[in-house]
Amino acid sequence: MDLVRVNEVGLRDGLQNQPVMVTTEGKLALVQALITAGLKNIEVTSFVSPKAVPQMADAADLYKALPAKDRIVYSVLVPNLKGYERAVEVGVKSVTFVLAASDTMNRKNINMSLEQTKTACCEVIRQAGKDGVTSRTYISGLFLCPFEGPIPDERIIEMAEEMFQTGTNEVIIADPLGLANPTRVYQLFCSISRKLGLDRISAHFHDTRAMALANVWAALHVGVRKFDSSIGGLGGCPFAPQASGNLATEDLVLMLSQCAFETGIDVEGLRKAVKVAEGLVKRPLGGRMMPWLESRAELLPITY
Amino acid sequence: MDLVRVNEVGLRDGLQNQPVMVTTEGKLALVQALITAGLKNIEVTSFVSPKAVPQMADAADLYKALPAKDRIVYSVLVPNLKGYERAVEVGVKSVTFVLAASDTMNRKNINMSLEQTKTACCEVIRQAGKDGVTSRTYISGLFLCPFEGPIPDERIIEMAEEMFQTGTNEVIIADPLGLANPTRVYQLFCSISRKLGLDRISAHFHDTRAMALANVWAALHVGVRKFDSSIGGLGGCPFAPQASGNLATEDLVLMLSQCAFETGIDVEGLRKAVKVAEGLVKRPLGGRMMPWLESRAELLPITY
Repeated sequence: MDLVRVNEVGLRDGLQNQPVMVTTEGKLALVQALITAGLKNIEVTSFVSPKAVPQMADAADLYKALPAKDRIVYSVLVPNLKGYERAVEVGVKSVTFVLAASDTMNRKNINMSLEQTKTACCEVIRQAGKDGVTSRTYISGLFLCPFEGPIPDERIIEMAEEMFQTGTNEVIIADPLGLANPTRVYQLFCSISRKLGLDRISAHFHDTRAMALANVWAALHVGVRKFDSSIGGLGGCPFAPQASGNLATEDLVLMLSQCAFETGIDVEGLRKAVKVAEGLVKRPLGGRMMPWLESRAELLPITY
Repeated sequence: MDLVRVNEVGLRDGLQNQPVMVTTEGKLALVQALITAGLKNIEVTSFVSPKAVPQMADAADLYKALPAKDRIVYSVLVPNLKGYERAVEVGVKSVTFVLAASDTMNRKNINMSLEQTKTACCEVIRQAGKDGVTSRTYISGLFLCPFEGPIPDERIIEMAEEMFQTGTNEVIIADPLGLANPTRVYQLFCSISRKLGLDRISAHFHDTRAMALANVWAALHVGVRKFDSSIGGLGGCPFAPQASGNLATEDLVLMLSQCAFETGIDVEGLRKAVKVAEGLVKRPLGGRMMPWLESRAELLPITY
């Protein structure tokens, strides 16, 4: 069976725009539930300004308190060298950085031009390289910028190439607006595969228009074996109009297991983690297959 | 642009298990909304026993009252030669027949063995051939029978071959339990393509576990260009445990248009048809992308 790495981003990309403030203890309970379900890659927080994202104000305390640091790969998002330094100070070994593929989205997202963001990203990547810290770069807002229009594949590939040359360990092709469709995903990943290979490429889809699983399968079909997802579908992009709903981890893992990919993750365990996440944000969560998972009779096992 | 034929089944596969009785006038209003949205292929009813499916008791009256019979392909489901005869009596030009791939499902579904069902199906196909009536055969319950276990691809292909040899015009590969996954779909349609070609093959998916769009794209990728769907996701299989939710026509058409396939169908028109369907069954309907469609701002057009 082919292995697929699932990287859980609910605690970062999910919680960042939730109106209910979640305590550090609550976040740790969710981390524990995710580990129990079998997740080994978890993006836990971001070292951003607490004023910009109050939900992440406990980044340092949370990181220090994380369990099983020897066997779980925890990553944190950093917006710049300052955030990076705050992160490594508490022992972070893996950082991510978001680079939007359009200048306007960069400005809306983090109030910097694309060139300024690239410079900040390269600073972090180089410093991480020196420190032996893993760096992963999101290239985000592909396919279509709501402000600038279609983003050509070439621009995404050039940006990815530039980040690899600077020393980033992985590029995450991200669609936070949920504007991707499986045919475009297939074409883009075919181009990326030819130019850069897929070993260091990951994919991050949002399920805004219900195409996330189709996009995942199109990417799988090209050979992508690394995906982000968010427990219960928690999240969305707080700065992007109409963006809602990360791809839910339980939807992703169910489809992967059905398609005979090995993830090491247990769907039943994810169901329990969704309940923990619901307790934290005080609203119902759950991926699109959740009603089925909740109602299934004993007759049909989860995995065939 | 590649053409894709979308066959609307909400009035048959959707309404057959709804507890609210829908009037003939209501059904005609939905047909009109579907035609306005651009649908040209509609499965409108079934000529089954009114005792078994009371919702379809008006089959003959409905068929007689249908608009635009010269340009819309209306089909009806028939369970046997008797139903076929009732259908052609009112002028039906296209019939469908359901053949479950497992003996147990046939018995549960229509209280006949697989061999008895095949015999009945072949009778209808032959008579339709003589009468110049189009016949389409659902081979249903593939991938996994909840009672018998996995169904081998060979059995499905053999059944399809047999039905083509008997004279059916099209075979619809149907997953009413929503047990398909895109990798199995891809494999099955690759096998079918090699043995039978895809020109006379259609696919029918249910969205029970949220994989219907991924399944559609996997089938599209092999070359399938004909799909069933149900307005608002109306329906499910009334005799199958846990089956719920046909693939919604609006989800299918949105993804097809995004992937640059031509359907001749307008998503806005489908949104209005969903409202008509909701009025008939007196509950909220709508595919998985409906919240997005309802909430989108002017900034983002529906189709890019």
